[in-house]
Amino acid sequence: MQHCDTLIFPGWCVPIEPSGTVLTDVAVGIIDGRITDIMPAAKARVKFQASVTVERPNHVLLPGLINAHTHAAMTLFRGLSDDLPVEAWLKTSIWPAERRWVSAEMVRDGTELAIAEMLRAGVTCFSDQYFFPEIVAETAVDLQMRAVVGTPVIDFPTAWAKDATECLSKGTDLVHDPYADHPLIATCFAPHSTCQLSDGSFLELRVLADQLDTPVQIHLHETAAEVAESLERTGKRPLQRLADLGLINSSLLAVHAIHVNDAEIELMSSAGVSVAHCPKSNMKLGSGIAPLAAYRAAGVRVAIGTDGAASNNNLDILDELRMAALLAKAISGDASVLSANSVLRMATIDAARTLGLGKEIGSIEAGKSADLICIDLEHCNSQPVYNPVSQVVYTARADQVSDVWVAGKHQLDAGRLTGIDTGTLLTRCHEWQQRIGQDTPQNARSIP
Amino acid sequence: MQHCDTLIFPGWCVPIEPSGTVLTDVAVGIIDGRITDIMPAAKARVKFQASVTVERPNHVLLPGLINAHTHAAMTLFRGLSDDLPVEAWLKTSIWPAERRWVSAEMVRDGTELAIAEMLRAGVTCFSDQYFFPEIVAETAVDLQMRAVVGTPVIDFPTAWAKDATECLSKGTDLVHDPYADHPLIATCFAPHSTCQLSDGSFLELRVLADQLDTPVQIHLHETAAEVAESLERTGKRPLQRLADLGLINSSLLAVHAIHVNDAEIELMSSAGVSVAHCPKSNMKLGSGIAPLAAYRAAGVRVAIGTDGAASNNNLDILDELRMAALLAKAISGDASVLSANSVLRMATIDAARTLGLGKEIGSIEAGKSADLICIDLEHCNSQPVYNPVSQVVYTARADQVSDVWVAGKHQLDAGRLTGIDTGTLLTRCHEWQQRIGQDTPQNARSIP
Repeated sequence: MQHCDTLIFPGWCVPIEPSGTVLTDVAVGIIDGRITDIMPAAKARVKFQASVTVERPNHVLLPGLINAHTHAAMTLFRGLSDDLPVEAWLKTSIWPAERRWVSAEMVRDGTELAIAEMLRAGVTCFSDQYFFPEIVAETAVDLQMRAVVGTPVIDFPTAWAKDATECLSKGTDLVHDPYADHPLIATCFAPHSTCQLSDGSFLELRVLADQLDTPVQIHLHETAAEVAESLERTGKRPLQRLADLGLINSSLLAVHAIHVNDAEIELMSSAGVSVAHCPKSNMKLGSGIAPLAAYRAAGVRVAIGTDGAASNNNLDILDELRMAALLAKAISGDASVLSANSVLRMATIDAARTLGLGKEIGSIEAGKSADLICIDLEHCNSQPVYNPVSQVVYTARADQVSDVWVAGKHQLDAGRLTGIDTGTLLTRCHEWQQRIGQDTPQNARSIP
Repeated sequence: MQHCDTLIFPGWCVPIEPSGTVLTDVAVGIIDGRITDIMPAAKARVKFQASVTVERPNHVLLPGLINAHTHAAMTLFRGLSDDLPVEAWLKTSIWPAERRWVSAEMVRDGTELAIAEMLRAGVTCFSDQYFFPEIVAETAVDLQMRAVVGTPVIDFPTAWAKDATECLSKGTDLVHDPYADHPLIATCFAPHSTCQLSDGSFLELRVLADQLDTPVQIHLHETAAEVAESLERTGKRPLQRLADLGLINSSLLAVHAIHVNDAEIELMSSAGVSVAHCPKSNMKLGSGIAPLAAYRAAGVRVAIGTDGAASNNNLDILDELRMAALLAKAISGDASVLSANSVLRMATIDAARTLGLGKEIGSIEAGKSADLICIDLEHCNSQPVYNPVSQVVYTARADQVSDVWVAGKHQLDAGRLTGIDTGTLLTRCHEWQQRIGQDTPQNARSIP
């Protein structure tokens, strides 16, 4: 018999590739953090001697979910203010809180909270944009989480960098060392939005991105106001401005991409630009609704992201993909738009390809990294099971995620996080609540 | 010291009335299934000797959530078919399944599954429309769940009744006996939709509803096709037809009510018609989006429902109220529309009033029935807590509901259902899956 580290026997396996496949009576092995073949269960039992055998007869085995856009550390601002129009939300709440509280310590704790939440919810990889990206990367490595760490680039001074040139310089350090060819961390540049960077900064960024072969992601056409302001200030819509600056190409990930016209969709399609769709944040902020059906018809690749917890207010990709499907059906008036299978691909293989990780993650295929999850369907709210993909997409909650492996490490084992001390983490959250909350009016009162 | 059955010490208490109130350091007692005053915690500890003391320091105590519209037994058809346009979904999947499988046994098991799911998710009262309503009522009483049991009325023969007259006759039995003045069960008539009843049947129903003083609920203006068909067949839109038949009044609950014009909203407002808003089902079936902001501006009372699990696919009111808030913001482009506080009222006191139960449930007030829930915020995805109402509405999942009381009975105790044997229930679900699933193509396969 051959040795393997872990052998998983799920009730069902949804490998994502080939599309639409649902397997039963199979096993998946993990050797040195990588996936073996998907084997008939009986064959696996005679072929392999496993260090750990994981029997999950009521569960669906899937590739780990991918959160294509977030600001992890903003978990510490979760629920700080809600139900405000986006401009007021930013100007009266989020930006003042960021000016006062963003620090290496805050980013460390906020990112750990985000990783704990995401692992618990079956997310094995997140694409992040936030200050102190070196801390985001360090935290992800410490906790053995996969991340695409974006270096924020803005012209204005922050606690982390004084201008775009310093952002780019720090980002270059991150790309070179220690994360070149790192097993868990990939990097990119993340200019915040076109209104936060001059043409000069964008040109500087483009040269560096080309030299370092580093992808770029940017909030683009998120609000009607952003597009209007750009037109007024530069005479161009943001996408056109980026095109003129040479930044519209297949290494660009356009985040949100809501207020686009047909010509812009065509431009994105022909240039190979991808989209990170964040339906809950867009809805909650009243920003608008991205034209998913049009993107898919035009062949634009779309991944799913939660955005930050300050505007979602969760980092739960199961919830987000369900929302993407329901919203697309609602807007089109067509229940057949964005099927369960399609939306599950957006949160796995499509997201992996969007982030340049399509050969490493996003499906259960021999040789790929063992980023895997099990979802338990033996809950009243997911029964009966006629079609496990339907139950995963339309009924399963994050708490039904029973097991998570990242590069073969068993991060969530039968519902328990193995690498994070949540007691200590929650104590630190309470401390942050006391510190950050002191600036906001408390609505809870006692009675005499 | 005074005796009380149960004394609950929550971290926060959100009594719903007065609106916007959040209390700390308080206790709520239960005596003979009813709520005592909300007291300062210190006072409660010296005043009361409780049989059971429940300490929930990280939790929010709320009135039980109300599901204003569902078809409970349809849990057994959950996920049978998805991603189909509504006409195809009904005609090729749901109606054939109903013709073949609906029976007293199916309604009993499906309703028990629904009640287990709803209790687990903090729902303490549901308003139901389905065949064999006497079985729905019996099941709710057996499991000590509160329900508004609607008698379905349609002209066509079903496994339960041969025509509208028989539906009404059976419904009359239900209203009279044994559920007149029952502590847990209220009743109503539930004509399916205007296209399923002749004018004669509606007139018969109206006379009975008046005589028995029984409210009426009906699927109304759910799809554009329903409105068009009515116009073609009767020359009237459904709402106008009901108005001409004398059925538009304050005892009518209009379910869905999506495709309405300004004059119709005005008519509903002036007549005191209420609306049961089911956003997830409407989205998933591509039926359209109800004009929530317009209803609220016109003073129409709106409650939240899940609809049946075959089109949702959950019976989770926390998820549904979050969806209602996000969808209203998305459609209006205004993040301030339908605040966390407003939407929580829709799922509690507004729903109670809509169902004619406003004096009995829907808020934590002295003398009301002890229909109460606790939601645990000590989860990574709900931390930190700046505002507990925001965390309940925008972050909490059904699994964070730790405790549920219905009329004082502790139905969910620290996450465990006390009155339902879920092991046996799930075994019966598996049997139904085998029976009902045999008619549908299986998508799961093994590999050689």
